[in-house]
Amino acid sequence: MTRQELFSNICRKRSFLCVGLDSDINKIPEHLFDLSDDPIFEFNRAIIDATADLCVAYKPNLAFYESLGTAGLDALERTVDYIAANYPDQFIIADAKRGDIGNTASMYARSFFGNMNFDALTVAPYMGEDSVTPFLAYEGKWVVLLALTSNSGAFDFQFTKDESTGEPLFEKVLRTSQQWGNADNMMYVVGATKAEMLADIRRIVPEHFLLVPGVGAQGGSLQQVAKNGMNAQCGLLVNSSRQIIYASSAPDFAQAARTEAMKVQREMEELLIING
Amino acid sequence: MTRQELFSNICRKRSFLCVGLDSDINKIPEHLFDLSDDPIFEFNRAIIDATADLCVAYKPNLAFYESLGTAGLDALERTVDYIAANYPDQFIIADAKRGDIGNTASMYARSFFGNMNFDALTVAPYMGEDSVTPFLAYEGKWVVLLALTSNSGAFDFQFTKDESTGEPLFEKVLRTSQQWGNADNMMYVVGATKAEMLADIRRIVPEHFLLVPGVGAQGGSLQQVAKNGMNAQCGLLVNSSRQIIYASSAPDFAQAARTEAMKVQREMEELLIING
Repeated sequence: MTRQELFSNICRKRSFLCVGLDSDINKIPEHLFDLSDDPIFEFNRAIIDATADLCVAYKPNLAFYESLGTAGLDALERTVDYIAANYPDQFIIADAKRGDIGNTASMYARSFFGNMNFDALTVAPYMGEDSVTPFLAYEGKWVVLLALTSNSGAFDFQFTKDESTGEPLFEKVLRTSQQWGNADNMMYVVGATKAEMLADIRRIVPEHFLLVPGVGAQGGSLQQVAKNGMNAQCGLLVNSSRQIIYASSAPDFAQAARTEAMKVQREMEELLIING
Repeated sequence: MTRQELFSNICRKRSFLCVGLDSDINKIPEHLFDLSDDPIFEFNRAIIDATADLCVAYKPNLAFYESLGTAGLDALERTVDYIAANYPDQFIIADAKRGDIGNTASMYARSFFGNMNFDALTVAPYMGEDSVTPFLAYEGKWVVLLALTSNSGAFDFQFTKDESTGEPLFEKVLRTSQQWGNADNMMYVVGATKAEMLADIRRIVPEHFLLVPGVGAQGGSLQQVAKNGMNAQCGLLVNSSRQIIYASSAPDFAQAARTEAMKVQREMEELLIING
């Protein structure tokens, strides 16, 4: 998917919502276990069908699938195939935070972009250029590089200021990585819990899309994110996982997820008008 | 496995070799495809049987297995189970370089330490404390944290000097992470291509084991690593992957791997005597 296509989808749907499929076998509604021998896929399918007109992206979190072994991997592949077949306008992000030397990164690229139908993969920057560029070799695919994360541990290293430039590490990641890719094949993770910093980040990466986790369960404000982070092509994908997918554990969980997603979409629609 | 047990194994086998199981479906000997419908496992089993008395650890690289989908995951699980059942004195490292927020890290910990029989997991430090500590909650299991990697991209961020202390990022990782774990549940990745820096690193982490990739195919020198990095309990696991496992693609590949592993083991035996 191109940046222009993603922006078109955002305009048409009046939403920049990404629904995080952190689908946990211990949290999904119990009745799904009676309905299917692949309850995780059944859960995802119901969530997807209930929210696809309200969001522009889905983000399965690989840890939740890997923890179930081959059954989890099957559920993941079925989910990605289901989205790609039924909702081809959705941008599908593998939240896997990979990062390894070149020949290993090439293997991961083959997994996510060759074997599976993902549009994008989250990547950790610690190992530098040759851990990122193999993913950029895939036409139409995206790297979503970690810059400033939403968790408490973000303060351990990401704010380390460079002796020679005074810039914190996350800014160095933003600046340096622009030599590897561009706004048409690279996005950045910037946590909503640091929304006040989005204006500074926009000065470094004015054109790039930012994937923003941490709205909702982690406490970030959507208004702040939009005010400080939106650019002329929206430039934001805001992720919400738990608040939407676990809105209810009753048999009407998908409807409850839709209600939550609609609340977010309506707020986003207003923000697109105000800031657009 | 405890640190003392690992050191005992090193002394008994006169080796601190870790064999990296970067088992690539495109590189393993062709005849294995006729022998078995799980040629990756057959390859690994032959390599393991031929080298287990010469090494103290095995390190499957997750990317190579994930790239084969569920079949790869099956081969990985069979490999780990095979090592654990037949060579219980081997330390088994999942080279997966995970790193994510706390609830996701807990899921990964369940995968590698709960569901699978790994002793250790490589972890990326970028996201800080809460991305690491969930793995340390497993008694007898280890985090192998990336500090200074062996690839060219290591120079992009790992040497960034902290404005307030002057220390490069990889040293900050070494120092800060000692508040999270200790020498009995944490090791560090330090590339052999930076062997001259091992003496400085030893001053920061005198007791910890270091996992050293990059000897052999990537060009690092084992003598330099031992001279600068060895401590009173050896404190080193030196990994070799391609040089050993792809020593030959003929039907005698396992014997060829043994010959290469034996060369390394004999060199290690001398180094243990000289530096021990």
